[in-house]
This record gives sequence, structure tokens and C-alpha cells, in this order.
Amino acid sequence: MKKIRLFTPGPCAVPEEVMLEMARPFEHHRTDWFKEFMKQAAEKLQTVMCTKNECIIITGSGTAAAEAAIVGCNPAGSKMLTIEGGKFGQRWGLIAEQYGIPVHRHEIEWGTAIDPQWIADYLKNAPDITSVMLTHSETSTATLCDVEAIAKIVKGAGKLFLVDGITSVGALPVKPDEWGIDVLITGAQKSLMLPPGLGFLSLSEEAWNVIEGNKDQHAFYLNLIKARKSAQGHDTPFTPAHVMIRGLVKALDMLVEEGMENVWKRVAAMAEATRKAGQAIGLEVFSKRPSDSVTAFCCPEGVKVKDIRNELQARYGIQSAGGQDHLKGKIFRIGHMGYVDDMDTMVAVAALEQVLYKLGHKFELGAGVTAAQKVFAERL
Amino acid sequence: MKKIRLFTPGPCAVPEEVMLEMARPFEHHRTDWFKEFMKQAAEKLQTVMCTKNECIIITGSGTAAAEAAIVGCNPAGSKMLTIEGGKFGQRWGLIAEQYGIPVHRHEIEWGTAIDPQWIADYLKNAPDITSVMLTHSETSTATLCDVEAIAKIVKGAGKLFLVDGITSVGALPVKPDEWGIDVLITGAQKSLMLPPGLGFLSLSEEAWNVIEGNKDQHAFYLNLIKARKSAQGHDTPFTPAHVMIRGLVKALDMLVEEGMENVWKRVAAMAEATRKAGQAIGLEVFSKRPSDSVTAFCCPEGVKVKDIRNELQARYGIQSAGGQDHLKGKIFRIGHMGYVDDMDTMVAVAALEQVLYKLGHKFELGAGVTAAQKVFAERL
Repeated sequence: MKKIRLFTPGPCAVPEEVMLEMARPFEHHRTDWFKEFMKQAAEKLQTVMCTKNECIIITGSGTAAAEAAIVGCNPAGSKMLTIEGGKFGQRWGLIAEQYGIPVHRHEIEWGTAIDPQWIADYLKNAPDITSVMLTHSETSTATLCDVEAIAKIVKGAGKLFLVDGITSVGALPVKPDEWGIDVLITGAQKSLMLPPGLGFLSLSEEAWNVIEGNKDQHAFYLNLIKARKSAQGHDTPFTPAHVMIRGLVKALDMLVEEGMENVWKRVAAMAEATRKAGQAIGLEVFSKRPSDSVTAFCCPEGVKVKDIRNELQARYGIQSAGGQDHLKGKIFRIGHMGYVDDMDTMVAVAALEQVLYKLGHKFELGAGVTAAQKVFAERL
Repeated sequence: MKKIRLFTPGPCAVPEEVMLEMARPFEHHRTDWFKEFMKQAAEKLQTVMCTKNECIIITGSGTAAAEAAIVGCNPAGSKMLTIEGGKFGQRWGLIAEQYGIPVHRHEIEWGTAIDPQWIADYLKNAPDITSVMLTHSETSTATLCDVEAIAKIVKGAGKLFLVDGITSVGALPVKPDEWGIDVLITGAQKSLMLPPGLGFLSLSEEAWNVIEGNKDQHAFYLNLIKARKSAQGHDTPFTPAHVMIRGLVKALDMLVEEGMENVWKRVAAMAEATRKAGQAIGLEVFSKRPSDSVTAFCCPEGVKVKDIRNELQARYGIQSAGGQDHLKGKIFRIGHMGYVDDMDTMVAVAALEQVLYKLGHKFELGAGVTAAQKVFAERL
């Protein structure tokens, strides 16, 4: 018997109902049949993304959706500020550079979150900045920044605010309308419980004003002007991965039924249980400001990340993530997104203990599981 | 009982085995498990695309793949010639314009194919042209141009040759290496027997030389330099729709097993049977040079395209296509791509007869079916 247990911070576990929904016989996409899926997807995305703003679906990865936003929101004369504290934060600055968009790329130590006051101070002295972009939950370091406080500063300074919510939307509280996020970006294969292949954006009227004035933007397939025009008729400008959009409606239904407040509580409990379990068996949480959608542990002395991950996979079919770039070999990551609940987390924690035991790490076997149980039991 | 019968020229019918393959439990994409699918997909794509050139997989539509090629193959100082005889030919010129790439957009009458001699004459007088792009099988008019003859001219003149093979690859003979096509583009949802969501390119060394020299190209997600670098390690630069790539391997297996020569014969027979059937019941083929992957009929006097299509759908679940732009209401189209064989074509022909009979078109009922049978029977 060999089960696959996906604890990577994307792609994440997908409900079988969603996989089978996508396998059903399909019709053409330029039909009322498909428009109904588009209509429902757009509406339910608003609920899951906590916004009244229009939501756009892109066939492509989360990066494709982010690129559409960066290119659309930065017409000639723009300058973007990006905050880069990990692999994904870096990417948004790289995209701007690839397009020749002026950008100030502010690097911070990986595993730390930007101090909102730094942004306030910077913007005071940089009137040429027109937009700010950052990653809410930095997947590569499992770190969360304070988007609510930052939004107040960025919007107070009159700038456009773009947020990569790829591993926060659908897992953690993100409130674009209440906080002031102009563009919120996410992807299918994280908390939205789909396999990879779709990216999503919600855009404020202020963002649309900039984008629609940006007629010469170097984007055709990823052109948000075209996407909006089609979306208003429940359509897409180019042939979409329409069986995935059918699956999306099914997955969104499940999230809406659970209720976003409940989803956030479920994810927070899984993250807390994992962190507490780790601490109980002598593991250090890497991030100075941990995200609840993914946990990064520092690799304990005398053990190799490669061995932990290989053993988890070989013994229990558990797929985890390692570190990227200079964190390679230093951390390993366990996700709390997608179709996972308390008991899946118990499995991850128990397996991690057993594997560390085998690899010679010294701790009291069972202490992690008990710590996790305590978090879950107190919620009942 | 209501069956769905897809005869649109994309999305096309997909084998159930492929749909179910995509619904199977999946692992992470940065694993040896997935690299094996990427390796097999790249190899089998070479067989189906009849080339030894490297093949690239893009998560996105055929347009996304074409955009990647247009942006990559036209660095500063380039000028492209596009031949536009329909909706898709037009698109490649529009993409160039959106990026500010100098382009000569040569329009021809819809339903006709470009005379290769025109291209020879034009290129003689336009030394500033660096690349030529056209659509092999123009889906919107069901028209095929002579890519073999044109390739000789374009390569003879030393230009880069880009071919949209979205509705030719996997249905009709296309031989990039033998003919001289630098970039051949296709999509998932036509003859490759997948639902929409993936685009494919094969690229010659000459194309790669231009693309890899084009460091400043305004493309990140659709950047072919990044795509190639990853593909050489059986990987992708961004999270791909990996369950679709798994399905792709299954679908390519079926095509490879049938053999491309046999596939082309099957498609040619379905197209011939459909055209002969149409002629036998008083329908005129719209195109002056019909493609075998899709047939466009002119709407007969006294009948409306809308009614034909609605009746086909309502009575028999058959989805067909109408005309686009100025051809709306004038033509209707029936595809011969994807998971369809002789007997599926018999169904389409019989249904079309019955619906036209009901709508009052005058002809001898059964004449179309008999004409189609003759084509198929003579192949046995």
C-alpha cells in the first residue's frame, strides 16, 4: 500500500469530488453551459477572496496572474516598490525589470517580515513611487507580513497596492475591501483546492482605471483589459482551461459552505498544532513571524533535510518541501493548505516524529503528537 | 438521454481514458515522478509534431504559445510579415502591434489561401523583413495554405518561419524539419485530444539562436529562454498544469500507437466524406482550398445557421461552430479533430441531413449519408 500525502505548500491535496468533476463529459466553452460556470466562479471567488471587486480568471500559474497585474498597473511614468524577503517577493521585482519598468527592490532578511513603518518612511521620501507590491505569505520562508497595516500606509500615500496572496487567500484572513488592497493575486493549487493551471485576481476600480488607461501595455494573452471585457459577459478572451473552471466552482462551493471564518480557524489550528509539536520535539520554527499556511522548521543538528524528506516520502508517501536558494538544506516546510484537516496534520506530525526518531534526533517520542492533540482537542 | 457530441473545431472530443488519467491521485511537480511525464511528453511530442527540434510545453492556450514565439523571435530591429486570411491569422499581427514590433500585415480574402509566389515577390522587395508568420489551417474559414511551398521560399530568403499549426498538427501532414519551419505552434484541445489548457511549440536551432539573443524581451511567464532552460532538465520554470501533462502523455501514446500517417489518413477521409456528403445534399463548401481538419459549409438559402446549430444541439447534442466576424450567419463548421472516427462522422452527417430536412432545405434524404459511406467503405 502506498498513499500519496501532499503536504507541499502547493500543489496541495485536492478533494476527489473536484478531480472527478473535472473528468466529466464537457461541452464547448462558448456556450451558455460554460458561461454559467464562469458566472458562478466569479461570484464565489468574491466570497472566498472577501471582496466586492471584479475577479478575473487566468489560465496559467499564479506568476502569470501576477505578471498581468504588474504589466497592467505600471504604464509609462510608473515606478514600483517591491519588498523582497524570499523567492516569491523577488520574482515581482524581476518581472518589472524584465519589462523595463522602473522598480525599487527593497531586500529584507529571509524569514523576517517588513516593518510597516519602513514603508511609511520610504514613501514619504519617494514621491515617484506609484505602486507597491509585496507577498503576503512568503511561501519560501513561511513568513507573514502585516498587510492590513501596510495597506493603510500605502493607500494613505495614494499609491496602488498589489498583494501576492498566493499562499494566503483561502487560508488566512485577507480583506481587500476593508484593508485597501487594489490587486489581490492567488493561484489554484494552494488553498483553492485545485490542481495547478489557473491564476486569479481581484481588482479595485482604482486599479482598473490605471490598467484601462494603459493601452500600449506589452501584454496580449495576459492583458487584463481584454480579460475584463470578456469576463463581464462571463467569457474569456482566449480558450480557457474550462474543465478546471468547472472544478473550481466545485471547490469554491466547498469553501463557501465551510465559511471563510471557519476555514481560517481550521488552518490556524493546524499551523499552531504543527509549531507546538515541533517545539515539543526540539525543532525551531524558522520564521520570525510565521505564516499559518505553511510551517518552516530549521533542520536539527546531526540530521539532513534530504533524509527527513526522503524518509517521509518513502515510509509514508508524505511530500514536504525543502528550502530554496541559500535556505537549501537548512529548512524543511510542511503546508497547511488545501484539502487537509486536523487529522491530516496529526499524520504529518506523527510521521515527522517517527522519521526523526529513526534518523537519531533525540527527543521524547510522542511529545509532538501530544502537543498537537492538545491544540485540536481544546477546539472541540 | 442526452449525449454530448463535440464537433467544434476545438475543444474536441477527448478519450475517457485521458480524462480519467488526469483525475488520478497526483504528486508534486518538482519530483522524479513528474519529470518522467515531462520527458515522455517532450519525446512523444516530437513524434506527433514530426520533428527532432526541442518541444516546449506552455500552461496556457495556443495563443499564449504563439505570443511566446512572436515576442521571442522578434528582438529590436526585427520586422515581421504576417499573412491574414481569417480570425487567427489576424491575431498574430495584433500581438506584434501590441508589443510595438514592426509588422507588415498582409490581408487576403477570407476563405482563400495565400499564393506562395506573392510571398516570394514580397520578400524580394522587403529586405527588412526578418520573420514570416502565418496560420497553416485557418480554423475560422477552414482553409489550408501550402506551408511546404512557402517554407521553401521563406527559408530560401533567409527569414525565420513561424507557423500556427494549432488546427493542423496531429490532423494533417506538417513536417517542420523536412519543410523548414522554425517555430511550429499547436494547442491541447484540437488534435492532441486533451481539454484546453496547454500550448506547445517546436523550435529550430535557428529560432533558439534569435530567442536566446533576445535577453530584454518583454516576457517572463511566456519567456522561452526560461522555458528551454527548465525543459532541458524535464522541468518547467513556473508551476505547470501537471495533471494535464500527465493526460497529454496518455493522449500522445494513443496517437503514436495509431501512427501519424494513419491519423492523417483517418482525418482526410472524415473531411472528404463530410464534403462529399454536403455536396450530395446541396451544400457548398466555403473555402477555396479546404483544410481537412475542419469543414465550413455555406448556409443554404432559406435556412438560418442559428437554426441548424440549435437543432443539431437540441436534437442530438451535437456542438458545431458558426462563422466569425463578417462570416457570422453565413457559414457553419464541423470539425474532424480529436477523438473522432468514421462512425462519428456518419453521425454528424446523418444528423445534419435530418436537421436540414426539418428546416425545409430541399434534397434527397439519405444522399449525404450514402456519399459519406462510399468514402469510408472504399477505404476498408
